[in-house]
Amino acid sequence: MKLEEKTLSSKTLYDGKIVRLEIDDVELPNGGSAVREVIKHPAGVAVAALTSDNELLFVRQFRYPFREVVLEIPAGKIDDKSTPPLENAKRELLEETGAVGFNYVPLGAFYVSPGFTDEVDFLYMCRVDHFEEQRLDEDEFVNVERIPLDKAVEMALNNMIPDGKTQTAILKTALLLKNV
Amino acid sequence: MKLEEKTLSSKTLYDGKIVRLEIDDVELPNGGSAVREVIKHPAGVAVAALTSDNELLFVRQFRYPFREVVLEIPAGKIDDKSTPPLENAKRELLEETGAVGFNYVPLGAFYVSPGFTDEVDFLYMCRVDHFEEQRLDEDEFVNVERIPLDKAVEMALNNMIPDGKTQTAILKTALLLKNV
Repeated sequence: MKLEEKTLSSKTLYDGKIVRLEIDDVELPNGGSAVREVIKHPAGVAVAALTSDNELLFVRQFRYPFREVVLEIPAGKIDDKSTPPLENAKRELLEETGAVGFNYVPLGAFYVSPGFTDEVDFLYMCRVDHFEEQRLDEDEFVNVERIPLDKAVEMALNNMIPDGKTQTAILKTALLLKNV
Repeated sequence: MKLEEKTLSSKTLYDGKIVRLEIDDVELPNGGSAVREVIKHPAGVAVAALTSDNELLFVRQFRYPFREVVLEIPAGKIDDKSTPPLENAKRELLEETGAVGFNYVPLGAFYVSPGFTDEVDFLYMCRVDHFEEQRLDEDEFVNVERIPLDKAVEMALNNMIPDGKTQTAILKTALLLKNV
């Protein structure tokens, strides 16, 4: 079956700090037409950082869309598209936790919700070399936490880790280290 | 550290077919203020459906935000909030692949990108009982495919599955069935 859709027209309804909303008219594979709502996003990075005691670093932060404090691995947007994702990941880890990592291994990238947004998240695993000071942005408030990897795997499998990228990174880290 | 943010004002800039864009002014934990861009989303469901030959059912469909045909497990929005996620998952599996499942097991829920959207995806695993006719929506075009579970795990670990929920569902299914 032919699957491609063709853009007929595109307009930007909102261009904000993080998201841009575009409303496009498209031609469907059968010649019909439809409206597509697209949220453009600058892409993200996230790091599963393991201490020498095999503990993973987490941050707890208030996630406004849920009005809730959420447990996640250190993560952030790609601020500067000219810098590779890995450099952004190193920067986010340092800013949010103060950790400086080594032995970075890519855990792949993924589309967070391809039905409506072009956000791609790049995941990494690393070992923690040492800690420096946290360097949070002005409007960023996070608490750092450590959880043993095997406990984190149990939490990910038992619905105690609500964040998607964090679930994926934990499971991939454990599978790569043959920890399951 | 105090983490909560307080809503000072909220306005809806766009209310569409899938997404609603809200721009809120918030009070930060330190008393300062910031703007939060929130994409409201009706939540989603996805199903890892295994045939009697241990093959997973996939669909390939054009995902407009990426202008690309993407390989995913059957999935969709929750159309009717009064219907439980599981019923929506069964409906999507039937509509997109024609499969009728049994032995449904929840694989947990996850936030797709808690920094900017309240979308939650509910994942399930099931066995395929039998096939009926696909029942696609008018503007839906998908090709169905089967991939052996062990091959799918390899693909998820080697960055050959770009979709996030699909990666997570494959890894959880394999871990639950001790297939890794």
